Amino acid sequence: MFAFTVANRRLKATEKPKPKLRSGWALIRVRVAGICNTDIEILRGYHSFHGVPGHEFVGEVVEVRGVSASTAKKGLGQRVCGEINVSCSAYGYHPLCDFCKRGLKTHCARRTVLGIVNHDGAFAEYLTLPLENLHVVPDSVSDEQAVFVEPLAAACEILEQLRVRDFREAAVLGDGKLAQLVARVLRTALPRVVMYGKHAPKLALARRAGIDTKKVRGDESDLRRVKESYRLLVEATGSPSGLALAQHMTEPRGTLVLKSTFHGAAPIETWPIVVKELTVLGSRCGPFAKAVALLRTGKVEPTPLITRTFPLAEAPQAIQFAQKPEAMKVLLKPSPLSSSTRTIFSKRD
Amino acid sequence: MFAFTVANRRLKATEKPKPKLRSGWALIRVRVAGICNTDIEILRGYHSFHGVPGHEFVGEVVEVRGVSASTAKKGLGQRVCGEINVSCSAYGYHPLCDFCKRGLKTHCARRTVLGIVNHDGAFAEYLTLPLENLHVVPDSVSDEQAVFVEPLAAACEILEQLRVRDFREAAVLGDGKLAQLVARVLRTALPRVVMYGKHAPKLALARRAGIDTKKVRGDESDLRRVKESYRLLVEATGSPSGLALAQHMTEPRGTLVLKSTFHGAAPIETWPIVVKELTVLGSRCGPFAKAVALLRTGKVEPTPLITRTFPLAEAPQAIQFAQKPEAMKVLLKPSPLSSSTRTIFSKRD
Repeated sequence: MFAFTVANRRLKATEKPKPKLRSGWALIRVRVAGICNTDIEILRGYHSFHGVPGHEFVGEVVEVRGVSASTAKKGLGQRVCGEINVSCSAYGYHPLCDFCKRGLKTHCARRTVLGIVNHDGAFAEYLTLPLENLHVVPDSVSDEQAVFVEPLAAACEILEQLRVRDFREAAVLGDGKLAQLVARVLRTALPRVVMYGKHAPKLALARRAGIDTKKVRGDESDLRRVKESYRLLVEATGSPSGLALAQHMTEPRGTLVLKSTFHGAAPIETWPIVVKELTVLGSRCGPFAKAVALLRTGKVEPTPLITRTFPLAEAPQAIQFAQKPEAMKVLLKPSPLSSSTRTIFSKRD
Repeated sequence: MFAFTVANRRLKATEKPKPKLRSGWALIRVRVAGICNTDIEILRGYHSFHGVPGHEFVGEVVEVRGVSASTAKKGLGQRVCGEINVSCSAYGYHPLCDFCKRGLKTHCARRTVLGIVNHDGAFAEYLTLPLENLHVVPDSVSDEQAVFVEPLAAACEILEQLRVRDFREAAVLGDGKLAQLVARVLRTALPRVVMYGKHAPKLALARRAGIDTKKVRGDESDLRRVKESYRLLVEATGSPSGLALAQHMTEPRGTLVLKSTFHGAAPIETWPIVVKELTVLGSRCGPFAKAVALLRTGKVEPTPLITRTFPLAEAPQAIQFAQKPEAMKVLLKPSPLSSSTRTIFSKRD
C-alpha cells in the first residue's frame, strides 16, 4: 500500500505491505484524513516518531480478524472513525495496567497512539485499529464532517471534565482549528462564548457560528490591553505565549483549561496560578460518541473550517500549506489519482 | 515607633509615627515576627513594595477603635495573630467587590496585604489590622508556635481545596519552611506523606514528624532518576525548576498543587499538563482557625523548624541569615534591646 512516513523531519512516500491484523482488529481503508498541528510538531521531531503520521480520519472497514462471521459481516464496509489511543486490552495484556483497570484507557501506561506513538497512522491508504476503538459514522454525516470527529471529541473532553453549565460564559484563546471546535462545543452548553484571536477572517468564521469575538495582537501588549476576565477560559492558541494571557484573563479562583500541546520550553511565570488560586486543567482526548452526536444532530457544523483538500500523494505540499497563517483544516484524500502519482514518488525515493 | 522599610532593595531602619486607626481596626504590638521567602522576594524588588515588610506575626492588641467599650476591654491585651488580606469591608467600601460578595475575601479586588501590598507589616514595633482579621491565640500556644499560624494556614488551604482523605498518600516537593508545614498538615489527614528534598538535615527534620523522605539532586537529572509518581503532589520548592519534576511525578489525571510563588519567568514545558490531563491547583492563603486548632491540639508542632531568633534591630542580618541554605524559620523579636540599637541605626541612615 501507499503511505507517507516521517524520515529526517520530512514526509517520505513509501510502498509498504498492507498491515497484518491482530485478533479483534480491523483493517480500514482511509477515505479522508485531516492534518492536525500535532502532525506538524511530529515533522519537527517531537515524539521522535518515525512511522506513518496522521490520527484524524474517516475510513471504511475492509477486513476484520478474530470475530464471528456474522460480526465480521456487519462490520465490513462500515464507515468508521476511530479512537487513537490503543490500550492494554487491544494488545491482550494481562493484567491490565492501573489506568486501564480504572477505565482510563486514554491514559493506558502501555498505549500506542495512532500516528503519534508507535502505531502507523492515517497518511496512508490503509490503517489498523482495534474494533473496540471504532465508531460507526451515521449515513447523515458526510466524510468531510466525520474527519472532524477526533478533534471534536478532544473539544468535548472539556464537557466531561467540568460542569460547563455551572458557568455563565466562557472565553477561548486562539482562533485556530482546535480553538474553533472548542468554542463551538462550549457554545452548545453556554449562552455566550467569546473567542480571542489575532486573525480577522478566522474570527469571522467563529462569529458565523454564534461566537462573540475580540481581536488581540498575540503579543505581550495584550497583557496591558485586555481588561476582561472570565471564570472559565480555554487556552487553545497552540503557542507558548498564550499561557501568560490566559492566566491574566482567568478570574481569581477561576478555571483555565489547557488544550495546546506545543512542545519546547517557554518562559512562563507561574505565580499568578498560585496568587489567583486558579484551577488549571489539562485536557486531551475526548468522547467520540458525543462528537458523533454533535455532528449527527447538526449542533456543530465543522465543514466551514475546511480550507483545502489535497490528494494523499501531495501530503508534503498539504503539510506546507497547512502551516500558512490563513490555513484552517487541510484534508488528504487517497484517490485513484494517487495510484499513478504513487509510482512516480516511489521511483524517486 | 521603630520599623524597617524597604528602600533600594534593602531594609532601612526608620522611626515612624505610630499608625492611626480606622474604625473597626486594632493597633497591635508585635511580639514575634517570622521571615518568609516572600519577604526575601520583596527585597529583590517584587511587588514593588516600599513600606514595612513582614506578614507572619504574633502580637498583642494595645488599642482598638470604633467598637463598644466592653468589646474594646475584651480585646485589649489579647494575644493575636492576623489574616493578612485586608478586604472591602475593612475599608468601608460599598458595594463590596464581586469577590467579597462571594465570600472570597482573600481574593478581594481592592485588597491590601500586610507587608506585601500597600499595607505596612510586621518588621516593626507595631502594626494595624481590622478586628475581623484577628484570631486570639490560646494560652497553651506559645509565641514561637503562634508565629507559624499564617504559613500553617497557607498549608491548610490544601485541605479546603481538596478532599485530601480521598487520596491514599501524597508527595511534597521541597524541604523548606513551607514544604515542611505542608507535609505536616497533609500527614494529619493521610497515612503516608513523602517529602522529596535536597538537604539531608531538613529531610531529617521531616522524618522526626512522621514524614517519609527521599533525597533528590534538585537538577534536571531528577527527571531521569525519579521513577515514582503520585496522584497528589504538592510543589513547594520555591524554585522554578521544581515544576518540571512536579509534572513528571504527578500521575495522569492526578492533582498537582502549586504553593511556590517565586517570581520571574522560568522556561517550562506545559504539554505534560495536557497530555497527562493533570489538575494543577494554585493554593495561597488559608484558614487561620484551622491552623490555630492544629497548634492547640499539638497535631502540628512547628517549633523544631526555628533556626534562630534575632532582635528586630538586626533584621537586615536576619534576612541575610535566612537566605543561607541551612536556615529554616528565622524570627524577629522587638525587645528592650532594640531601643538602644535603634538609635544607632537611625543615626546611620
